[in-house]
Amino acid sequence: MNVNGVAYRSIWLSKNNSVVKIIDQRLLPHKFEIKELKTIDDAATAIKDMQVRGAGLIGATAGYGMYLAVLEAPKNNFDEFMTKAAERLKGTRPTAVNLENAVERQLYVISKGNNLEERIKIALKTAINIADEDAEYCRRIGQHGLKIIEEISKKKEGEPVNILTHCNAGWLAFVDYGSALSPIYAAHDVGIKTHVWVSETRPRNQGAKLTAWELLNYGIPYHIIIDSASGHLMQKRMVDLCILGADRVTSMGDVANKIGTYLKSLAAYDNNIPFYIALPSSSFDWNIKDGKEISIEEREAGEVIYIEGLRNGEIKKCL
Amino acid sequence: MNVNGVAYRSIWLSKNNSVVKIIDQRLLPHKFEIKELKTIDDAATAIKDMQVRGAGLIGATAGYGMYLAVLEAPKNNFDEFMTKAAERLKGTRPTAVNLENAVERQLYVISKGNNLEERIKIALKTAINIADEDAEYCRRIGQHGLKIIEEISKKKEGEPVNILTHCNAGWLAFVDYGSALSPIYAAHDVGIKTHVWVSETRPRNQGAKLTAWELLNYGIPYHIIIDSASGHLMQKRMVDLCILGADRVTSMGDVANKIGTYLKSLAAYDNNIPFYIALPSSSFDWNIKDGKEISIEEREAGEVIYIEGLRNGEIKKCL
Repeated sequence: MNVNGVAYRSIWLSKNNSVVKIIDQRLLPHKFEIKELKTIDDAATAIKDMQVRGAGLIGATAGYGMYLAVLEAPKNNFDEFMTKAAERLKGTRPTAVNLENAVERQLYVISKGNNLEERIKIALKTAINIADEDAEYCRRIGQHGLKIIEEISKKKEGEPVNILTHCNAGWLAFVDYGSALSPIYAAHDVGIKTHVWVSETRPRNQGAKLTAWELLNYGIPYHIIIDSASGHLMQKRMVDLCILGADRVTSMGDVANKIGTYLKSLAAYDNNIPFYIALPSSSFDWNIKDGKEISIEEREAGEVIYIEGLRNGEIKKCL
Repeated sequence: MNVNGVAYRSIWLSKNNSVVKIIDQRLLPHKFEIKELKTIDDAATAIKDMQVRGAGLIGATAGYGMYLAVLEAPKNNFDEFMTKAAERLKGTRPTAVNLENAVERQLYVISKGNNLEERIKIALKTAINIADEDAEYCRRIGQHGLKIIEEISKKKEGEPVNILTHCNAGWLAFVDYGSALSPIYAAHDVGIKTHVWVSETRPRNQGAKLTAWELLNYGIPYHIIIDSASGHLMQKRMVDLCILGADRVTSMGDVANKIGTYLKSLAAYDNNIPFYIALPSSSFDWNIKDGKEISIEEREAGEVIYIEGLRNGEIKKCL
C-alpha cells in the first residue's frame, strides 16, 4: 500500500534473498524505519517485541523466519536446529493461529527436501507463497466487503458511509491490503465516500498509531476516538457499519480479537448496526469449536501504566 | 477521607471563611497540592479547567463560588454582578445537574437577604449546607450499598467481592465518601474483603489517576484495567458487581455518566451481573424524562491526542 505515495508491503526480501525487511511498527506514526532480519533470532524478536504484529504479518514473518533458520542451520544438526527454531517462533505470541500454521507448513515442506540446497529453495518458495497468499486473500476480502459498503452507500445519498473499526487490521497487520480495512480501500478506489471511526485501542494504541497512519497515507477521512466512545456513536446513529479483524476464529465462528471487540459487538447488536469480522481463511482454527479454548495473551502491566509518545521530537515513555 | 492517614474533604473553607480550599485534582496522583479560591473567577476556572470535577464537588464548588461572588459584588451593582456570576458558573460544564442546582439555590436564597451583611451570611450558610448535604447523602449511599455487597460477600466464602467501577465517583468527585466508591469504603470499614477493577477511563484517566489513588490511601486492593477489558472480565466471571456514578439521571431513570458507561452496562446485562448506578438525589433532573435531552459535553481533541504523565519527576505532556 501507500507510504507517501510509494508502494510498500509490510514485509519483503532483499534483492539477493538473504535479508528480510520489515517496517518497525513500534515507531509509527512518528518514524518510518525499515529493519533488516538476518537470523531466526531477529525474526522471533521482531514478533515478540511487536516490531511486526497482526495475524497475517505474524504468519508471514514466521514463514520468512523459518527460511532464515534454514540458511543458518548447521548441516550436522539440521533437524534439531529447525525444531528449536519452530518452537522458538511459536512461543513468541499465542493468539494468532497464522503463526502456528506458517511454522508447521514450513516444517513439513522443508522435511521433503533431499539436501540443503533443495531445502533452502523450498523454504524460500514457501515463505514467498505464504506472503503472496496472504496479500491475495486480503485483496479478495476487499472485493467481498466492497459489495456491503456499496449497498449502504446507495442509501446515504452522497453522504459518506461511516465505518467503525478497532485496533489495526490494515495492510500493516497483513502483507498487503489488510482484512478490516481492505474493503474500505476498495471502496475508496471505486470512488465511494467513506469516513472511518478509528478506535484508539488501548493499551498500545494501534488504532491511533497505525490505522490512522494507514488511512492518512491512503487519503481516507477518519477520526480517532477513545475505545469507550463507540457505543455512544452507535446510539447516535453515527455508525453505519462496523468492520473488525480477528486473531483466531473457531470452527463455530467464535472470534478472538483485540480486547474491546466484544463490547463493540454488544453495542452494534443493541443498536441494530451491521457488524462484520473480516478475516482470511488462514485465521480460522478448525481444530477448536469454543472460543473459550483460545488462549488469550496476557502482556506485561507496563503497557497499561506507561505510555510512549513524541516529546520534543523524540519517542519517550512516561508514567 | 484519607490522604496518608490524614482526614480531608475535597473542598473546605479557611478558618476566617474568606478563602475556599481545594485539592488540584489535575496533578493527582503525582502531586498533592492544595489550591486557594479567592474570587468567583477562581471558582469558575477551577471547575472549567477541572482542578475540581465530579458531580457533587462541582455543585459544592459552585455553592462556594456564589459565596465568593457575594463577597466581591459591588454594592451599587449587586444584582447584575450576581446574575453574571451565576451565568459564568453555569457555563463552565454542561452535564452535571448539581452545578445548576447549587447556583439556582444560592441565587434564590441570597435574594431574600435585606442587606449585604445578611446576604453574606446566607450565602456562606448555604454553601456550607450544600457541601454538608452532599457529604451526608454520600455517607448514606455507602450504607445502602453496603447491604448489596454484604449479600454477595456471603456467597463468596471469604473470597473478596470483585467490584468494577469506571472513572472516579469517589470522595474526590463529591465532598466526602463519594457515590460509587462509598459502599466499598463502608464494606471495608466493617471488614468485608473487596477487590476493585478500576477502569482507567480515557481520555483523562480519572480512574487510573484518582480512583486508584483513593483506594490506595484507604487500603483497598485494586487493579487498573483498560476500559475495553471490562467485558472480558465479566465473561470470565471475574466481576461480581458493577457500581458506577452519574452526572445526571432523568425522571425516567436514564443515566448520563462518563463515556463508556453504556458499554459496561451492556456487558453486565449480557453476563447477568448486577449493575448499579450510585447517586445522591441532587443528581436527579426531574425536569426531563428522556436521556436524549441531556446535553453531553464535548471537550477538546487535545485530551485524546496528548497524554500527561510523570517523566523524570515532572508532569509532562506528549503526543
